[in-house]
Amino acid sequence: MIRVGYGEDAHRLAAGHALILGGVPVPSAAMGTVAHSDGDAILHALADALLSGVAMGDIGDYFPDTDPLWAGLDSRAILGRVLELVRDRGYTPTNIALVVTLDKPKLGSMRAEIARNVAALVGLPESEVGVSFKTSEGLAPAHIQTRVTALLTRVKD
Amino acid sequence: MIRVGYGEDAHRLAAGHALILGGVPVPSAAMGTVAHSDGDAILHALADALLSGVAMGDIGDYFPDTDPLWAGLDSRAILGRVLELVRDRGYTPTNIALVVTLDKPKLGSMRAEIARNVAALVGLPESEVGVSFKTSEGLAPAHIQTRVTALLTRVKD
Amino acid sequence: MIRVGYGEDAHRLAAGHALILGGVPVPSAAMGTVAHSDGDAILHALADALLSGVAMGDIGDYFPDTDPLWAGLDSRAILGRVLELVRDRGYTPTNIALVVTLDKPKLGSMRAEIARNVAALVGLPESEVGVSFKTSEGLAPAHIQTRVTALLTRVKD
Ligand SMILES: [Mg+2]
Ligand SMILES: [Mg+2]
Ligand SMILES: [Mg+2]
Repeated sequence: MIRVGYGEDAHRLAAGHALILGGVPVPSAAMGTVAHSDGDAILHALADALLSGVAMGDIGDYFPDTDPLWAGLDSRAILGRVLELVRDRGYTPTNIALVVTLDKPKLGSMRAEIARNVAALVGLPESEVGVSFKTSEGLAPAHIQTRVTALLTRVKD
Repeated sequence: MIRVGYGEDAHRLAAGHALILGGVPVPSAAMGTVAHSDGDAILHALADALLSGVAMGDIGDYFPDTDPLWAGLDSRAILGRVLELVRDRGYTPTNIALVVTLDKPKLGSMRAEIARNVAALVGLPESEVGVSFKTSEGLAPAHIQTRVTALLTRVKD
Repeated sequence: MIRVGYGEDAHRLAAGHALILGGVPVPSAAMGTVAHSDGDAILHALADALLSGVAMGDIGDYFPDTDPLWAGLDSRAILGRVLELVRDRGYTPTNIALVVTLDKPKLGSMRAEIARNVAALVGLPESEVGVSFKTSEGLAPAHIQTRVTALLTRVKD
C-alpha cells in the first residue's frame, strides 16, 4: 500500500532574518525568511507533503500562524509532530524529492548537509532524500519557494 | 502496476465572479475565477493529473477554452469525462494530494467539505484525498494556483 | 521497490533564442529560452526529477552553468548522463508526468511529437509519458516553467 504526498511553501525574504533550510542554518544568506515560526521552507513543505499523503489536513491546522504559542517555533517540532500523526495512521515515508527555488545564495555546497539532516529528521537513509536547487530566473527574487513530493508506505493495519 | 500523475492550474481572480473549488462554492470569496468554464482550479488540475498518469493529453484537448460549447461548463463534467477515459485505459485513482495557493479568503474551515466532495467525485474514500491551503506570500495576490499529484493503479488488462 | 522523483525548471524568454522542448524545436516560437545550455526546460526538469528519485543531487552538480564547457550543450546529453547515473543506482523510470507553463505559442499541436521524443530519450513507451500544457494567466508572460513528477522502479540490487 503506497501513497503519494505533495506539499509546498513560500516565504518572503528580508534582511535581518535567519535562513534555515531542512533544519540547517544558511550562514551566507544576506536575507532570511519572514515568518511566524522559524520559517524553514523545506520542513514546512515536507510536513504538508506527509500530511497530504494521509489526508490529515495541513500544518496550518496544527500550528496556526495566528497563535502566539507558535511564534518562533522550531520547525523540527512541526515535522516531529507530523511524523507522529502519519505513523499513527499506519504510514511511514519511503522517499522524498524536494526542490528549493532561491536566487541567492547558491546552495549547492550545502546540499549534502541539508539532505543528511532532513533524512535524519524523518528517519530515512540519505539515499532516500533527493534535494534540488533552482533559481527563480527573475520571477521571485525576494522569496524562497519549496515543493516536496513524497512516497509513503503502509506499515500496519 | 502504479503510475503517478501531476497537474496544475491557475486562474486570474476578479470581483463579480464565483469561486468554486472541488465543486464547492466558496461563499466568502470577494473575488472569483476568470475562466471560460466555471473555473474550478482544483478539478482542472486534478483532471490533468489523472490524464497525465495515463498519458492521454490534457483537458485543453477535450474541452478547448475557445469552444463556445464549453462556456460556463460545470467542471464536474470535465472530471467525470476524464475518469471515464482513465478507467477505459484500465486505471483508477488511488490517492490524491493537492495544494491550493490563494491569498483570500482563508479556506481552512472549508477543507473537510472540499475534500469530501472531491473524494465523492473521484470515487475514493476521504482518507485518500489530501488538501492543503497556502497563501502566495505576495507572489500572486490576484490569482489562484493549484497543483495536484495523484497515484493511479492498474485494475484491468 | 518504487521511488518518486520531482524536478522543476524555469527560463527567461527572449527574441532571437531558440525554444526547444523535450528535444523538439518549436518553430513557431517568437521567443526562446535564455540559457547557458540549449535551455530545454522539459529535459532539465526531467533530469532533476530522475536524480531526485535516487538522491543524487541535481544537474547543476554535473553540468554547472558557470562552466564554459557546457555552453550551448544539447540537453539530450544531460538526460543521457543522468539516465546512466540512475541505472547505475539500480533504478529505471516507470512513468513521467510533466507540465509546461508557457503563454505563447500554444503547444497542443506539438504534444504527440514532444511526448514521443521524450519517451524515446528515456526508453519508455509513449503510454508512460504524460504531457500537459498550461498558460501562466499573466503570472509569467516572459518565462517558461516546467514541473515533472516521475516514478522509478528498482531493477537490480
Ligand atoms: Mg512556511
Ligand atoms: Mg482552469
Ligand atoms: Mg534549465
